[in-house]
Amino acid sequence: MPPVLVAFVAGASGAWRIVRMDAVAGEGLSMAARLAMLEVHEAWVLGEGSWVLRGVTSNTRYTHRPEADTLAARQQGLDRPQASRAALIPIRKTEAWWSLAQDERRAIFEERSRHIGIGLDYLPAIARRLHHSRELGEPFDFLTWFEYAPEHADAFEEMVRRLRMTEEWRYVDREVDIRLSRV
Amino acid sequence: MPPVLVAFVAGASGAWRIVRMDAVAGEGLSMAARLAMLEVHEAWVLGEGSWVLRGVTSNTRYTHRPEADTLAARQQGLDRPQASRAALIPIRKTEAWWSLAQDERRAIFEERSRHIGIGLDYLPAIARRLHHSRELGEPFDFLTWFEYAPEHADAFEEMVRRLRMTEEWRYVDREVDIRLSRV
Repeated sequence: MPPVLVAFVAGASGAWRIVRMDAVAGEGLSMAARLAMLEVHEAWVLGEGSWVLRGVTSNTRYTHRPEADTLAARQQGLDRPQASRAALIPIRKTEAWWSLAQDERRAIFEERSRHIGIGLDYLPAIARRLHHSRELGEPFDFLTWFEYAPEHADAFEEMVRRLRMTEEWRYVDREVDIRLSRV
Repeated sequence: MPPVLVAFVAGASGAWRIVRMDAVAGEGLSMAARLAMLEVHEAWVLGEGSWVLRGVTSNTRYTHRPEADTLAARQQGLDRPQASRAALIPIRKTEAWWSLAQDERRAIFEERSRHIGIGLDYLPAIARRLHHSRELGEPFDFLTWFEYAPEHADAFEEMVRRLRMTEEWRYVDREVDIRLSRV
């Protein structure tokens, strides 16, 4: 799959209603009524109070083969009809994180924080797509988009709580948590 | 270091004279007289026969801590006065490469191909900066820029030859080799 450039556009229109937005760490984002997830080549108009975050899908950076196979076997795609809830969680990591070598980041990410392992506990209920933003000069490093059915909302909260308690999350210095429901 | 977006602009002007260009694998690029390496926010005008390749510096993807420390101790920066020769080598890797898991790519890259190890053999003579292009929707995945003094030109050729014989290079399906001299 070649990289897909995606823009998350908040404003007056879009297929998702923003139901809640929390600044978990660092500066938040202004509240808006709706959010649209667009391919970057699609046109949009920014009205007052709008903002755009851009990201791009890419190859995995930490996943080893057995983990990749387990993920591929269990995870589901976006746009499932029953997945009427969504979350967009933009995250920025510290310079200390980005200065680590690959093996050090992997050790914190999985061996010590079990980022992949925690995510696997919530499959196939929670669908997820990761977008990289750091190389695009964006204010966040990652935009993670999640979709799930209302009956899995508690499980989603638990997953987010567990991830935020990990050693990896000590390297997060900006995080905004945006919850949405399909219009 | 935050990512730096760089544009390599070929055309009638620029600080580097293009002395040679070879299509090593796949389609080549059109010949031009000069090349400029610019920060992307700098303005430029594309004349006839011009082309632009964009890339962005980023964190390392395969380097382990001992390798990172050895590299940091030995490598030199760009713009050394004696480094009047340069090479720009844009590379694209196959979908098979990008579908591999992180541990599989690392094993091919270093354990089996010794990409980092081969590069270390030519430090500090050859300075190098890697730019990522794949996530920018560019025609190449990487743009590597090298600078060296004329007396290290043979060493540079040897390094490139050794890298092209590796298992990693079987995943390269487009490569252009551009040699330059400082104007």
